Amino acid sequence: MTLPILYNCPPSGNCYKVRLFGSLAGVPLEIRDVDLVAGVQKTAEFTALNPWQQVPVLQDGKTVIWDSQAILVYLAEKYGKTSWWPAEPAARARVVEWLSISVNEIQHGPADARLVKKFDYPLHYDDALTASGRTLTIIDRHVATHVWLAGDEPTLADCAAYPYLALAPEGGIALDAYPALRQWISRVESLPGYINVEN
Amino acid sequence: MTLPILYNCPPSGNCYKVRLFGSLAGVPLEIRDVDLVAGVQKTAEFTALNPWQQVPVLQDGKTVIWDSQAILVYLAEKYGKTSWWPAEPAARARVVEWLSISVNEIQHGPADARLVKKFDYPLHYDDALTASGRTLTIIDRHVATHVWLAGDEPTLADCAAYPYLALAPEGGIALDAYPALRQWISRVESLPGYINVEN
Repeated sequence: MTLPILYNCPPSGNCYKVRLFGSLAGVPLEIRDVDLVAGVQKTAEFTALNPWQQVPVLQDGKTVIWDSQAILVYLAEKYGKTSWWPAEPAARARVVEWLSISVNEIQHGPADARLVKKFDYPLHYDDALTASGRTLTIIDRHVATHVWLAGDEPTLADCAAYPYLALAPEGGIALDAYPALRQWISRVESLPGYINVEN
Repeated sequence: MTLPILYNCPPSGNCYKVRLFGSLAGVPLEIRDVDLVAGVQKTAEFTALNPWQQVPVLQDGKTVIWDSQAILVYLAEKYGKTSWWPAEPAARARVVEWLSISVNEIQHGPADARLVKKFDYPLHYDDALTASGRTLTIIDRHVATHVWLAGDEPTLADCAAYPYLALAPEGGIALDAYPALRQWISRVESLPGYINVEN
């Protein structure tokens, strides 16, 4: 059987979302690293896969999906991982809430701070810190009363949110002030099949 | 029958996404305006509905959903609007790609520019313009060869992306350079049940 191909960059938290879900949910992927420093993502060949010129991209036969959240939904749908992507409308919408938070509040908080500190991206670091403070405070309160972000079991919500929350210290953001968030991070890391960003 | 309640703010593009879908897809909603200027979204009562203290929020009996994309998915799932939220995995993932673009690239491009120009938000206007240029260019190329953003029929993708793209001129962003995008905007505006932001 031909595996879906994940066009990947090892330190990318967005790519890690997909690798983590694949490992947790038992969806094997063929990983192909893309050399972003060499600018491979800007070639015509790669732009044909993803006009946004970013990783991750998933290629599954003739099907090509870009955006890490969309890839998570595709894999969960295709492989019938219904506990990770529940079918009941409210439960499913609750997962989508956190897909949006992952793309916006988490991206433009801790993920942007990491881009500045670790990769020298020309973003506004102070803005990222301010946004992170608000975002981490709200999430800390949420997981103080919720075992998992979007239900009683881990879902795509946890896979999408975990990478840049757990990697926040690489952006100079300490998590000491967020004890419930740290406990949720430990819960994710205790799941069977958990892998860290280096795997 | 009790209708789902949409906590709404009339000029909010994120609220408009939901009103537009409701009108296009035939999902009646009870609209309740929230006085953001008076700070109602920061009250304990509203924060209990949405910890992010933002509109829109949907309340459907005991079910409360925040985030405009999550509300779109909830309504499409609950009311069986399968053409707007197709069931086939790749088709569905293609909709999610554009939900993410709506939350990130469109929000932090034309929507942020509008927040500055129309509502005096203290955001970086030049950054929003730069981001808008890239985002509108990529979307213009996409809709030059695609009738709808995520398939052969209009989907939640079009409902999520349309408001802040069509309202870009309110952020000082002219759409003259994006003829295919303007044609897609016209296609949305020709759909039966279309309403503008003031409805």
